[in-house]
Amino acid sequence: MTAYFTAENSVAAVNARMSDDANPRLREVLDALVRHLHAFTKEIDLTQEEWELAIDFLTRTGKICSDERQEFILLSDVLGLSMLVDAINNPRPEGATESTVLGPFHVVGAPVREMGDRINLDGKGESCLYEGRVLDLEGKPIAGACIDVWSDNAEGFYDVQQPGIQPKWNNRGRFVTGADGRYSFVGIKPVSYPIPDDGPVGKLLEQLGRHPYRPAHMHYMLTASGFRKLVTHTFVGDDAYLASDAVFGVKKSLIARFERLENAATEWRSPFDFVLAPE
Amino acid sequence: MTAYFTAENSVAAVNARMSDDANPRLREVLDALVRHLHAFTKEIDLTQEEWELAIDFLTRTGKICSDERQEFILLSDVLGLSMLVDAINNPRPEGATESTVLGPFHVVGAPVREMGDRINLDGKGESCLYEGRVLDLEGKPIAGACIDVWSDNAEGFYDVQQPGIQPKWNNRGRFVTGADGRYSFVGIKPVSYPIPDDGPVGKLLEQLGRHPYRPAHMHYMLTASGFRKLVTHTFVGDDAYLASDAVFGVKKSLIARFERLENAATEWRSPFDFVLAPE
Repeated sequence: MTAYFTAENSVAAVNARMSDDANPRLREVLDALVRHLHAFTKEIDLTQEEWELAIDFLTRTGKICSDERQEFILLSDVLGLSMLVDAINNPRPEGATESTVLGPFHVVGAPVREMGDRINLDGKGESCLYEGRVLDLEGKPIAGACIDVWSDNAEGFYDVQQPGIQPKWNNRGRFVTGADGRYSFVGIKPVSYPIPDDGPVGKLLEQLGRHPYRPAHMHYMLTASGFRKLVTHTFVGDDAYLASDAVFGVKKSLIARFERLENAATEWRSPFDFVLAPE
Repeated sequence: MTAYFTAENSVAAVNARMSDDANPRLREVLDALVRHLHAFTKEIDLTQEEWELAIDFLTRTGKICSDERQEFILLSDVLGLSMLVDAINNPRPEGATESTVLGPFHVVGAPVREMGDRINLDGKGESCLYEGRVLDLEGKPIAGACIDVWSDNAEGFYDVQQPGIQPKWNNRGRFVTGADGRYSFVGIKPVSYPIPDDGPVGKLLEQLGRHPYRPAHMHYMLTASGFRKLVTHTFVGDDAYLASDAVFGVKKSLIARFERLENAATEWRSPFDFVLAPE
């Protein structure tokens, strides 16, 4: 029989209630959750008033979620949890390109385009040629790799944030490599932008004295038969927010060169090779 | 300058972003939150899929909250967090009556009644005389103590859960002690009931193999000038759920006697003395 709850035996009192028949992984996760939650609460001597503030914060965070907005993911992002889950789940062998967060703006089914095609359909921003190779760990080109790319527009918004304002599929496209593993497309030099900051998470950042900006980046999702899926970004090398990304997505190896061009078809060129790990 | 995020430095990377100008208590709480959240995540090697389940769970928990329902409080209750916060915030000197959770069904402003009055207005259930004294730590009666009481009805519902079905203020009342510190009122012998279990928290309990029942109890909130407010219950001594209260509210010292009466005005009698701690 379980002992009655006390502050001293609080973890055991709660966890002893789980049935032996419950899913073993669920038991493991809940056991650890209760242990860490109670340790946190005891360490900081959480007051009744602070508990009420926390209940209210979580409730407002849930209430603002919609088909277009996921405030709990935003909370996970700004607490570094999303990047931690990415790190735990996507260890890479030495030499393979590192991953980073997917973010909320990926859309399945972007148009498949020809190498060299333009993805910025709204005519705004500074044009940039993206090019490079998709390689395996031995430096050999991967044929038939699908490169799904997306970025914000020159004003810092993704097409799905401005339906009816931006052209559909603006700054999005999929490209499939040939035998040489090469890719190239024309987009814009992306710009830094704030994560949605008019809700509970934005208010929290403000109270912590943190800004809501992400440094400029191009999103990539690479898939190829026999290789592990890679979700990553490349970052614009001179961005002011590289060291303070609101969601902690920057890795040094993902900072790309952006070269200013003269007398060329685009204003910038950004070379980057991707190396995929085998499955 | 902050180092880029890695799984190893994850806590430092996030917490270094807080401004020195932020509220010191907020910094302290967030610092501990990030430390415990990341330790939990690393300990259990949280998968991407489990992270998605957690985001969805929190979102549904927020969505079901309304003016009549607070699913995050329910979540706090079933994880033992509400009782832990009560224990941290309400230490009592030896000899004082112990506290327990307020619960979601207290209503401010119940009618002030005369000692001995009846609070069960719907004519249902087994009647019970509640009586005893309000005392200080030295055993002296406290005059002018306000005793605010509330319970479910014989079917396990509070009046506010059944507006239009139960009479207003059914099973509620306030009583003020005289010079002898004595109180008495007639209510019902309360019954055990399930917490609302048709939402995400109820589903979680089911998956953990836990039942949603609370053992039968009478709620009390005692206030008196010069003494600390006491929020507590008395529990019906023979209840089948005493050792497995879904919200962990039971303390041994709060289990009251319920005596069967013969040839009396009520079917039961429950004596209980309350001892208040000085402010």
